[in-house]
Amino acid sequence: MRTDLATAQSLAEQLLVSAGVPASAATLQAELLLVAEAKGVPSHGLLRLPRLLRRLRNGTASPTNTGKHEWLSPCYLSVDGEQGLGPVVAHRALAAVVPAAERHGVAVCSITNNNHLGMLGFYAGRIAERGLVCLGMTTSEALVHPWGGTEAMLGTNPLALGVPAQPHPLVLDMATSQISMGKVHDHALRGVPLEPGWALDAAGHPTVDPVAAKSGSIAPFGGPKGYGLGLGLGAMVTFLTGAAYGTAVGGTLDDTRPSNKGDLFILMSGAGHSASEYLDQVRRSRPADPGTPVAVPGDGARARYQESVAEGIDIADDLWRELTALTEAAHPEAVLAD
Amino acid sequence: MRTDLATAQSLAEQLLVSAGVPASAATLQAELLLVAEAKGVPSHGLLRLPRLLRRLRNGTASPTNTGKHEWLSPCYLSVDGEQGLGPVVAHRALAAVVPAAERHGVAVCSITNNNHLGMLGFYAGRIAERGLVCLGMTTSEALVHPWGGTEAMLGTNPLALGVPAQPHPLVLDMATSQISMGKVHDHALRGVPLEPGWALDAAGHPTVDPVAAKSGSIAPFGGPKGYGLGLGLGAMVTFLTGAAYGTAVGGTLDDTRPSNKGDLFILMSGAGHSASEYLDQVRRSRPADPGTPVAVPGDGARARYQESVAEGIDIADDLWRELTALTEAAHPEAVLAD
Repeated sequence: MRTDLATAQSLAEQLLVSAGVPASAATLQAELLLVAEAKGVPSHGLLRLPRLLRRLRNGTASPTNTGKHEWLSPCYLSVDGEQGLGPVVAHRALAAVVPAAERHGVAVCSITNNNHLGMLGFYAGRIAERGLVCLGMTTSEALVHPWGGTEAMLGTNPLALGVPAQPHPLVLDMATSQISMGKVHDHALRGVPLEPGWALDAAGHPTVDPVAAKSGSIAPFGGPKGYGLGLGLGAMVTFLTGAAYGTAVGGTLDDTRPSNKGDLFILMSGAGHSASEYLDQVRRSRPADPGTPVAVPGDGARARYQESVAEGIDIADDLWRELTALTEAAHPEAVLAD
Repeated sequence: MRTDLATAQSLAEQLLVSAGVPASAATLQAELLLVAEAKGVPSHGLLRLPRLLRRLRNGTASPTNTGKHEWLSPCYLSVDGEQGLGPVVAHRALAAVVPAAERHGVAVCSITNNNHLGMLGFYAGRIAERGLVCLGMTTSEALVHPWGGTEAMLGTNPLALGVPAQPHPLVLDMATSQISMGKVHDHALRGVPLEPGWALDAAGHPTVDPVAAKSGSIAPFGGPKGYGLGLGLGAMVTFLTGAAYGTAVGGTLDDTRPSNKGDLFILMSGAGHSASEYLDQVRRSRPADPGTPVAVPGDGARARYQESVAEGIDIADDLWRELTALTEAAHPEAVLAD
């Protein structure tokens, strides 16, 4: 099913409003889902909406809370997310932290009890466009095994980094796992084997069977370094935010548990000089494939976004039917008027 | 040649003092070299000492400068390293920044014009032992090709992370390259081929010939993610410090150029809770090899350090002869007294 972004955005907004979310918050939450679709990251897109609606209806997510702010110092904001919508809580927190970073050169925002943020790169890109470096981190359910280990002990613990530059900032947004658990599920649905090294089964043995991997664990990216990075980021967020860790993390992949992961943002203003020329030197350097120029993180996602704006996005038929049915259930009068 | 740490430390100190370095600075600089040897990272050890002595004698490194401090805000220290010794400048800067981080929850230290710091993990570990999170970054000469590129455009841009915990902090210290250029040189010396995927030759073609790779480039670790991380860290340090970037970086692998790379430290105090229990859960989780427990970053280096304290360190014969000869040249009276 192909649709344009505006139609999908409007559908998502309506569903959120019908679950009690104020209009401006619904617009922001829907935007995070649609930006992910448009950038080619459906794991952070509309497929999360039905779960989010269930969480709103059963009270594990609050439609109206925007977070309790406590400034631990003029440059350190601690936020209790009050189980609000992830993007709504994060957006308000970052809006408060940007002036602090501009004034003091650095400011930190730690967030707990907040629902899924969506694509971390969204925030890093926005902050970089305002002229600040942004490091963004979040923890998640234990799905990844340690290097040399066999049990799921780490989240996919993504790292986002935005660095201001012209014409476009550098925007890195990467999980510290080799693949996502969404990819395992996708392979299982399509009956396609995994690649060796991607996953272990529940007993801790290497497997290419996606069904076996669903109850097992996925590998860190890049061997011991990627494991070290993922664990280090997770331990740092735990230490700084007081969030849950390891197998105790829940609330972003289920309908019933309060979200207890942690989010952390570090914003810094530059005392140096622009990175624009360097990034352009990298883009202009000799590519391995003459037809494929060297890309800087964020370039590919930006190109896919522009393409999606022009040509629309493809939504899985099942998901579209589910969302449409939810809309009709929420607005029976709209159906009657047809 | 096997020696004990104290003997090697004393030798290094003597050589530095004879090049005009004050005793306490010589002790610190020598310690950084010996900690690297003891932790099994000889690329950051004594092999760097002859070059450092040449830099001290020809004026590209200052024996006495300790950096000019400028506080851009109460939590942002900008340091002009004045071409002092890397560890001396960094140590004084971090000593000034720790109280700022304790007071404000976060503090940043950016350093330019500073010689090679040595192992970044040394600083991250020390800061973590004082109860603060430490993120440390530094840029370096362009040796690494972009993912999808064929030219050396990035430094090995290491990242260090220290997270306080009992009984030991987590201490991550990793280059964002697949291997070090030192490893390429080592393979070339021993006539051992590289593994596929490690390096490109000067024309940008994949090679396993270490001699061809010496004039080419080495791969980022972990594919596109490791490339994105290395480039992102490099661009961030450039933006925040004003240091040189890409192929313009020099001064840590040569005798003649002033050091123009950038160093960046972010220190944060915890508003959350200890990461100790989580790290111990990871250590106790089921290992892939029953005889090899799962390790947390820093565990291996700590064990090697203890082993080196007990059993001494192995220094390449050529290097030991060179250092001994330098000592005799610096202290002819010591030779006469023998």
